[in-house]
Amino acid sequence: MRNIALTLMYDGTAYHGWQVQKRDVTVAETLEKALAHVVGHPVKCTGAGRTDAGVHAERYVANFRTTSSIPCDRIPLAVNTRLPGDIVVTKATQVPEDFNAIGSCQRKEYTYRIYNSRIRNAFLVNRVWFYPKHLDEEVMARAAQHFVGTHDFACVRSVGTETKTTVRTVHYFTITREGDMISCRVCADGFLYNMVRAMVGTCVYASEGKLSPDDIPGLLEGRNRTDAGPTAPPQGLYMTNLWYPVPNLP
Amino acid sequence: MRNIALTLMYDGTAYHGWQVQKRDVTVAETLEKALAHVVGHPVKCTGAGRTDAGVHAERYVANFRTTSSIPCDRIPLAVNTRLPGDIVVTKATQVPEDFNAIGSCQRKEYTYRIYNSRIRNAFLVNRVWFYPKHLDEEVMARAAQHFVGTHDFACVRSVGTETKTTVRTVHYFTITREGDMISCRVCADGFLYNMVRAMVGTCVYASEGKLSPDDIPGLLEGRNRTDAGPTAPPQGLYMTNLWYPVPNLP
Repeated sequence: MRNIALTLMYDGTAYHGWQVQKRDVTVAETLEKALAHVVGHPVKCTGAGRTDAGVHAERYVANFRTTSSIPCDRIPLAVNTRLPGDIVVTKATQVPEDFNAIGSCQRKEYTYRIYNSRIRNAFLVNRVWFYPKHLDEEVMARAAQHFVGTHDFACVRSVGTETKTTVRTVHYFTITREGDMISCRVCADGFLYNMVRAMVGTCVYASEGKLSPDDIPGLLEGRNRTDAGPTAPPQGLYMTNLWYPVPNLP
Repeated sequence: MRNIALTLMYDGTAYHGWQVQKRDVTVAETLEKALAHVVGHPVKCTGAGRTDAGVHAERYVANFRTTSSIPCDRIPLAVNTRLPGDIVVTKATQVPEDFNAIGSCQRKEYTYRIYNSRIRNAFLVNRVWFYPKHLDEEVMARAAQHFVGTHDFACVRSVGTETKTTVRTVHYFTITREGDMISCRVCADGFLYNMVRAMVGTCVYASEGKLSPDDIPGLLEGRNRTDAGPTAPPQGLYMTNLWYPVPNLP
């Protein structure tokens, strides 16, 4: 069996997240159906992370096993003709037998986008968190800086998924503004459930003066979710990069 | 009665164009319902042009008459809270009694966007014409240049609307590429039905060698729609600017 890694992008608006569910349409299910047509047998995809409903991916990796001999360079176009326009396979790479899109992933980057303008933008519905009250990106950036490093992130974790430990390492967390758009880019070895959205909500709280950036080390130590800021809404969140110990992936 | 001009933007994906119709949901109808709530009486809007189903506007102007004394600077937020997210009023300006969004308009600019990449982009569904075969934007630009000036544009006009004359003046028509995105910007004193989309289709034909840029003067003289290229699809078309003899509008 060949093990194939797909690089993809998707607009998550129409989907109930990545992971296959019983009732709702998900990205994985939609992709698996399209792949099955191309390779001629049922397919099971392993994704790099369980993105929530409404969350997007500019870059995402999933792998599947197949008996098909279709060349990798023909897979993207073949699958894309069977996919709706909001899911696109950009590349297929044959990977070692033991490769697993989630287990082999060394680092991931998410970008959270806040449209901080008094007036909405008609083209950004479902693509950003529209926040009409002015935010101070410098205060937010100072708050974000306190999350960088190896910490117990229990205070920015929503319950709902099992995990052995709540300790993670955040490699960088930058917050910058271009015009009305605030981009929060955060890279870590792994993320707890809702961790990015809770950290962004906490940075927004800091800009609003509801807590001080310097309170964050104490919040991390306290491990109490209710001490930190609220969870930012899903539509502003994008998976934007991934790192694997495999050449040319993603 | 005050005469108020609204500057707006809309993502046309969900609408059957600007103009009120019997059966389908249009931008004008949606806007008129929201305005009626704000001013407390039924409202009739005159728009700057009858955009087709699926066509967008980064900038658009419509005017309406009202007995309400609501200050102009309070209108955008008041109307936007009653509008769906894909229609946004960005400004309201009191204009002279005889102002009419279509009749007073001196020039309009449309931008047509072609996403010219072998692979689709999941975030540009309904926002561009996805064209996977490589286009030569320099050939397209040479073709576009032949449309500039005062001509009879019957060869790039679809039937369907009444007009006294098919003579129009195109002020500029530039075609440029940034990465995979080709932008066709055209400004004229007025446009015939489907004129931008037919001119873009003709420029694409020129890139494909199905006609030469130098054939265009002959096509214009011939006045025969079937001699020119096909009508490009609606979702790549955006109204992007308008000019009025009124200060600060739009």
